[in-house]
Amino acid sequence: MSKNYALCHLESDYNNGAHEVVLRRLIETNDERTKSYGDDCFSEHARQLIREACAAPEAQIWFLAGGTQTNATIIDCALQPYEGVLCAETAHINVHEAGAVEFTGHKVIALPAHEGKLVAGDLQAWLAAYFADETAEHMVRPGMVYITFPTELGTLYTADELRSLHEVCCEYNLLLYVDGARLAYGLAASKDVTLPLLAELADIFYIGGTKCGALCGEAVVFPHGNAPSHMLSRIKRHGSLLAKSRVVGVQFEALFQPVGGTSLYATIGQHAVSLAMQLRHLFVDQLGYKPFIDSPTNQQFYIIPNRDLDSLRNHIGFEVWCPVDDAHTACRFVTSWATTKQEISALEILEQAPVS
Amino acid sequence: MSKNYALCHLESDYNNGAHEVVLRRLIETNDERTKSYGDDCFSEHARQLIREACAAPEAQIWFLAGGTQTNATIIDCALQPYEGVLCAETAHINVHEAGAVEFTGHKVIALPAHEGKLVAGDLQAWLAAYFADETAEHMVRPGMVYITFPTELGTLYTADELRSLHEVCCEYNLLLYVDGARLAYGLAASKDVTLPLLAELADIFYIGGTKCGALCGEAVVFPHGNAPSHMLSRIKRHGSLLAKSRVVGVQFEALFQPVGGTSLYATIGQHAVSLAMQLRHLFVDQLGYKPFIDSPTNQQFYIIPNRDLDSLRNHIGFEVWCPVDDAHTACRFVTSWATTKQEISALEILEQAPVS
Amino acid sequence: MSKNYALCHLESDYNNGAHEVVLRRLIETNDERTKSYGDDCFSEHARQLIREACAAPEAQIWFLAGGTQTNATIIDCALQPYEGVLCAETAHINVHEAGAVEFTGHKVIALPAHEGKLVAGDLQAWLAAYFADETAEHMVRPGMVYITFPTELGTLYTADELRSLHEVCCEYNLLLYVDGARLAYGLAASKDVTLPLLAELADIFYIGGTKCGALCGEAVVFPHGNAPSHMLSRIKRHGSLLAKSRVVGVQFEALFQPVGGTSLYATIGQHAVSLAMQLRHLFVDQLGYKPFIDSPTNQQFYIIPNRDLDSLRNHIGFEVWCPVDDAHTACRFVTSWATTKQEISALEILEQAPVS
Amino acid sequence: MSKNYALCHLESDYNNGAHEVVLRRLIETNDERTKSYGDDCFSEHARQLIREACAAPEAQIWFLAGGTQTNATIIDCALQPYEGVLCAETAHINVHEAGAVEFTGHKVIALPAHEGKLVAGDLQAWLAAYFADETAEHMVRPGMVYITFPTELGTLYTADELRSLHEVCCEYNLLLYVDGARLAYGLAASKDVTLPLLAELADIFYIGGTKCGALCGEAVVFPHGNAPSHMLSRIKRHGSLLAKSRVVGVQFEALFQPVGGTSLYATIGQHAVSLAMQLRHLFVDQLGYKPFIDSPTNQQFYIIPNRDLDSLRNHIGFEVWCPVDDAHTACRFVTSWATTKQEISALEILEQAPVS
Repeated sequence: MSKNYALCHLESDYNNGAHEVVLRRLIETNDERTKSYGDDCFSEHARQLIREACAAPEAQIWFLAGGTQTNATIIDCALQPYEGVLCAETAHINVHEAGAVEFTGHKVIALPAHEGKLVAGDLQAWLAAYFADETAEHMVRPGMVYITFPTELGTLYTADELRSLHEVCCEYNLLLYVDGARLAYGLAASKDVTLPLLAELADIFYIGGTKCGALCGEAVVFPHGNAPSHMLSRIKRHGSLLAKSRVVGVQFEALFQPVGGTSLYATIGQHAVSLAMQLRHLFVDQLGYKPFIDSPTNQQFYIIPNRDLDSLRNHIGFEVWCPVDDAHTACRFVTSWATTKQEISALEILEQAPVS
Repeated sequence: MSKNYALCHLESDYNNGAHEVVLRRLIETNDERTKSYGDDCFSEHARQLIREACAAPEAQIWFLAGGTQTNATIIDCALQPYEGVLCAETAHINVHEAGAVEFTGHKVIALPAHEGKLVAGDLQAWLAAYFADETAEHMVRPGMVYITFPTELGTLYTADELRSLHEVCCEYNLLLYVDGARLAYGLAASKDVTLPLLAELADIFYIGGTKCGALCGEAVVFPHGNAPSHMLSRIKRHGSLLAKSRVVGVQFEALFQPVGGTSLYATIGQHAVSLAMQLRHLFVDQLGYKPFIDSPTNQQFYIIPNRDLDSLRNHIGFEVWCPVDDAHTACRFVTSWATTKQEISALEILEQAPVS
Repeated sequence: MSKNYALCHLESDYNNGAHEVVLRRLIETNDERTKSYGDDCFSEHARQLIREACAAPEAQIWFLAGGTQTNATIIDCALQPYEGVLCAETAHINVHEAGAVEFTGHKVIALPAHEGKLVAGDLQAWLAAYFADETAEHMVRPGMVYITFPTELGTLYTADELRSLHEVCCEYNLLLYVDGARLAYGLAASKDVTLPLLAELADIFYIGGTKCGALCGEAVVFPHGNAPSHMLSRIKRHGSLLAKSRVVGVQFEALFQPVGGTSLYATIGQHAVSLAMQLRHLFVDQLGYKPFIDSPTNQQFYIIPNRDLDSLRNHIGFEVWCPVDDAHTACRFVTSWATTKQEISALEILEQAPVS
Repeated sequence: MSKNYALCHLESDYNNGAHEVVLRRLIETNDERTKSYGDDCFSEHARQLIREACAAPEAQIWFLAGGTQTNATIIDCALQPYEGVLCAETAHINVHEAGAVEFTGHKVIALPAHEGKLVAGDLQAWLAAYFADETAEHMVRPGMVYITFPTELGTLYTADELRSLHEVCCEYNLLLYVDGARLAYGLAASKDVTLPLLAELADIFYIGGTKCGALCGEAVVFPHGNAPSHMLSRIKRHGSLLAKSRVVGVQFEALFQPVGGTSLYATIGQHAVSLAMQLRHLFVDQLGYKPFIDSPTNQQFYIIPNRDLDSLRNHIGFEVWCPVDDAHTACRFVTSWATTKQEISALEILEQAPVS
């Protein structure tokens, strides 16, 4: 950071390197010679570990470098050219990917968001109206539903909500795609959503590495062996094929290696969520700030009086989210695997802000 | 590799991890918190080191993940939509990028290759014919010349050849873009081409990391401060913006940190070229194979009698390039920073093959 | 039509051939040999007539075949690759062009529609928020405002409303593009918007031919001589260049030839609007139907009780627009240059429907 | 034309309006109200006539506006995204479509041309090499073979040559697509290729209207009922769907209406080819010019001494094709349905040129 904050950096979960276990595995494997483009033993091992974690023995898995790249590549590969992708209006692909999906020729069709989530009822209603419309052939045909887990606002779908979306997708023959850029944090905070459930309900999902302990990389999973043909060519055509794809494979090997009944990926999620809950306690119960949204995951949003902003900025790195009213601003505070208990505890010295 | 060769792995220069100095720098910087998307101190330092190495104080530099991605993104960003890119027919963008440039809507216009090189005379003739053609407006307008240094066949442009191409580009107002996926090896082997010369003659070039010591990553240089506007948005739209772009920045910091009047990038190049020359001595002078092409760089191509192929494969990993005649096959042997002297020396136990 | 309605066809304004004056001009010029691709005397004459009608002597004009083609081609030509186009959510490009704009790689950014119109205040607010957002570089940059005149719902912008949109566009350096697929009907119904005013306020607009008297064809106008370079190549690359572009030029010659102080284009507009007003009188005052929207142009929308639909369908061809409630449906009735007074008058035999 | 030539206009076969029979049919049908987007009785009748002429009762047919549009739209619709199209290097899509195919994201892969034709042996050899290449997945996969009938140089494939191409396509599972922009002239001149043969051997072909008697329009035929799904949406997405698609349908009705055992389309072809042969007799036998290529169709190419060019230009409109040597230029002279016997006969007054 250009600035060294006194207490802690909560701007994002990608302001660091890699988890030390991940880094160690990169070091261990560094001198091995392997085939390239993903056809190496480390990547294959990582795939096997992910299949096991997902209870999806048929799963096909590719390793890509980053989240926007993954979304644009995979959505384009999975859709027919004339199809579009439905999502909540707050979805990452609709807001913060600089039009990467449209660059591949597909319309992003935004539906209302409810605390960052797409609701099955809205989806059902939109689809019913689309297919009842006599001019439907002149409109972009829906081919996929995109959701994020957790959402851009830190919220989570329950298992029942996912099942409802899955049912609507089945009814209308749409693919369900789950963007898991922060999946570790979502799984750690969820009461009932697990990797096997995702693998059961989603047609495609990706397990985020960049924000969950890796230097870079995301693992795309087609859980039912349902990947389109010629994926290597398709991925390369999008410029998304890494020559040393193993660099991502090795990291996912470290993230999913079973360790005492769990995995580093699970541990990372729990760590960050636990610190996020400690932060919530501090901000809400001690400092008296109101949540902007009720997030159970590693992204926390609070309504900060504008008069407190400068003072906070002296101690913490965070991101301004959006203005709330003339006197208040919603701000985002993000924990990650790299956040330490010491950092969060140190925040307790902040003076209590008046409830505003 | 699925197979463990007795003597050495010469299939490619991307069958490994990173140079230990690069890896060490990743470890050293791992716990630092920085801004993302390339706006971090390590990336900024790497940019400064590259500017100095190129004697190009105005250079604008971006760090991307891989070579095909870089070519497709940068060619599309630099061209007008209706323009195409001229290259030798053997050029990587014309052959081995799965249509990534065409995916962005641009025609790749292939001209004859002379030992992998585009010749200024051919270029000049093609351009003169294009602009003399009454139907030119109905044809794809040339907007850029793409060359590789070294080429896909390991050959090198001389400084004079580059100057000639540069002059033709100036005459016809075309951009000259140099793909330096293996630039370290080209610079090490060239008698007269240097980074400052490239920075003088090229409008855009990229310094390859993936094949030259890094885990991943390429550095795109606009040496004259001549990048198109809104590059961050453009790169992101192509799915090519890394959230932790610093991962590449840190590696280029290590590659270009001056060390005793040189840099790791130069040292890596010299090491691999030196071993390639040792390999050439062995293959040509001792084993009596003929070169398929006369390459001074880390990619070596020999004509192997088909009856020797299996025996060679027992000892060395290499790549079949193309059939030469019914009894001979051109094969590629690639050294890299990771190849050791021991590996190459061990090859001397190969029985001398009969000259064929 | 598969069905021959007793009284009249009001399904659309493109269910016919060409106005007889247009057809006559095609016949008159049929045997002349001319250059192709728009470089012919008829097209040049048509351009001159349009320049005069628009009081825009510097205007550059191209003739394309259809409306969606024109929108997709021109929007893509005028935008930078990383830019998107803002419009009302009901805009044709957002709903009924099967994703043709996204096919060219640009995001369509939908803002709320007010009776089919984009409101300057909404636009201003969106733009202010966009440019205040710290993450704006990661979002699609707005490059153009698209409006339709008349709108998809038959409504019209006043001159003041256009001026307000124009001012916001100037403030934020956006292009203002007006889709005039039904421009003849809009100009005829407007109290204060004229071709010269459009040419003053819009950066680009197109004068619709297909729906306003021609067999096919639209005239794209860059009123300030502000067309991008290499338009012929750009248009051809989009597959939108007609070899016999003169076929459209000849028709626009007929439409814009001054006749007694007016033009066929104006006459066509007045005719259809006049019949639309007669229809409104019948539907609202005599039959007691409520307007779904208050349209002054050739597209009329009424709320029809479902129990009347079959009976209406026996007499009139029309289009179902959308359900209003369980018992009512909004329907569209469209007049055109081809609708006759006899057809509309014949409708008076319809039994008066009970007010519902 | 800006210039009125004394004798005749042989610049192109699209320098005019429509054949009078076509025009008459447009006039006759002008006042009928029909459905739009191709779902009208005239288009349906035209489709039925084409199916009969092709002896292809299962054929699916769409009417588009122009040739480049048709090629780009249909090639993109028929290919998988990662596939490219193979063609002769002189092919229209490779040279004169301003990159319209690449605009849709597909590589045009050019093979050697033999008098404008693609030879089955070259195709077979290329495909064998492609599929034998270990790196094939990194190269654009071939999905279609594109040929023109007649070619851009006026030459024709024999039935046997078409069968050979067809067999190679079957062997490698490629689509065979025939661009029939000038199909009338090809069929008239061919000894053994007929519409039913094309319908048997090609997977897709288009029957050119614009250059063969129509104001505009081409008929795309999927002879085996093998069109991709959702063609209306796909065509619209490309901006290629005409609202009044019937305008093209009506013209094809006129072109394919059986008249005394033949059709206007056949008659047009015979007329122009007959005049082309008369022109050949004049140029070769009387004036002593050498053919640049031996074309049996309506496009004739002769080698004209440069000293004769100005004099010829005083009498005839023609197109410079390419320089042959310092003293000679290849020129193209094109007849069409609109060329009259009088025009060609009048050329006999040209002074005999010295054989050069």
